[in-house]
Amino acid sequence: METVYFNGKLVPKNEITISPDDRGFLFADGVYEVIRWYEGFFYDMDSHVTRLKRSMRELRINWDGTDSFPSIALDLIKQNKLENHPAMVYVQITRGAAKRTHSFPSPEVTPTVYACAWGFVPDSQSKESGIKVMLKEDIRWSRCDIKSVALLPNTISFQEAWENGMKECIFVRNGLITEGSHSNIFFVIDGTLFTHPESNHVLSGVTRKNVLRIAKELGINIREEAVLENRIRFIKEAFISNTSAEVTPVTELGGNTLGDGVPGPVTRLIREKFDAEIAALKV
Amino acid sequence: METVYFNGKLVPKNEITISPDDRGFLFADGVYEVIRWYEGFFYDMDSHVTRLKRSMRELRINWDGTDSFPSIALDLIKQNKLENHPAMVYVQITRGAAKRTHSFPSPEVTPTVYACAWGFVPDSQSKESGIKVMLKEDIRWSRCDIKSVALLPNTISFQEAWENGMKECIFVRNGLITEGSHSNIFFVIDGTLFTHPESNHVLSGVTRKNVLRIAKELGINIREEAVLENRIRFIKEAFISNTSAEVTPVTELGGNTLGDGVPGPVTRLIREKFDAEIAALKV
Repeated sequence: METVYFNGKLVPKNEITISPDDRGFLFADGVYEVIRWYEGFFYDMDSHVTRLKRSMRELRINWDGTDSFPSIALDLIKQNKLENHPAMVYVQITRGAAKRTHSFPSPEVTPTVYACAWGFVPDSQSKESGIKVMLKEDIRWSRCDIKSVALLPNTISFQEAWENGMKECIFVRNGLITEGSHSNIFFVIDGTLFTHPESNHVLSGVTRKNVLRIAKELGINIREEAVLENRIRFIKEAFISNTSAEVTPVTELGGNTLGDGVPGPVTRLIREKFDAEIAALKV
Repeated sequence: METVYFNGKLVPKNEITISPDDRGFLFADGVYEVIRWYEGFFYDMDSHVTRLKRSMRELRINWDGTDSFPSIALDLIKQNKLENHPAMVYVQITRGAAKRTHSFPSPEVTPTVYACAWGFVPDSQSKESGIKVMLKEDIRWSRCDIKSVALLPNTISFQEAWENGMKECIFVRNGLITEGSHSNIFFVIDGTLFTHPESNHVLSGVTRKNVLRIAKELGINIREEAVLENRIRFIKEAFISNTSAEVTPVTELGGNTLGDGVPGPVTRLIREKFDAEIAALKV
């Protein structure tokens, strides 16, 4: 039986119960993080913890155990015998269980903290050959900077892409390309790397931040600036980034083949450095 | 112990458990309804069932028990001895529990169906004297016509109003007043009743629909047309409508006193007919 973390304890998964009064279930009133385990270490755990704290602060959810999360995550890896496997640790914190009212529970209730770990097989085929992605109007709320569990718009948008044989849905808001349903997106135009700036319309991705650092170290020209949907014909390369996809090339965007329809040189350069950093950390 | 309905059975509330894999908990991938029990009958149950079916259809959640819901609701009222009390029945249907992926579970899983009932004391003071409401930028997604549990934007907006001594948060999108965090809103300008038309930016309220019917029967001029925020000074009366507030006058909107700062004559007329219909049904 899988071991999970629930409100302070490591327990068998079948022993935990989420209350039907949990505000995560009733109102999507909670936040989450997903952290990658690379057979020996977590990738940039500090940035995930920092972002988790920020999401909670924005929603005024108070869990004082955030600093203990890295050790909880490690315990989950060990207890589930995932040390030597590519794995993910998931953590979700909701405002807690209380009588259903739109206003926050008063007095405050104890937040619900749930974490689990799972092994997975990385999609190396996509990383090598690239993926096709859909373009769709951004139907999400205007606080996409908060990593909340109010993910219904993301799931239905991703599902639409998936059913059309595409591996991500990229959003367009007011004519500007923002990000994917669960990834950030980068473009290469005239040798310059573009990505949407940090704002309330995109999540400040941990991999995004590291890609920008790597690109800078490689001397690539960077502009954190949104790309207009009507400039797609000028895009020579694109890639998405997130915790599981890492740096995955995009060869087709909304039906438009990008460049030669194969992963481009700037994308390859960034991915190679990303992979090299991981390899160096594994030693 | 409270009796609730869970996946086909009436059971004591402490015997049910929501799985941490439930997509309602992880993704807000679910819909809900709240129906008013008036000491003897449900208010317009048919419209709630019709809307529930529509919400599920839009999200492709398949629960074939929807037609049995009215009898489940009645059972909940009886089992919890609420026959002679003002009460609410709440029902939530999620896509079910499955391994966490943004795409829908494949093969499809059984949806989670949860329903409960609670008694409450109607806020007759607000209905009599009217309420103050806040105005705030609409931060929600663009499918507000679906009654989903992705309510985080609604709760944090309502909380802000609540902490400022106001009883609802009314949203403004692109300069147009849409609706409240959990109510529709109506305005009287030059004797005409205005409310936002049905669209993807508002929920098609059951009480809203009945208010429009009543206003028509009373011979009031109606325009289903959004009111611009910058036209507030022309608003002589306003009221919100929903299942619990019924028809509740608004005397102050975003800091602006409306008319004489007391419930207006058109609002009173509509509310009296609404109340008279309830009274007639109680006989």
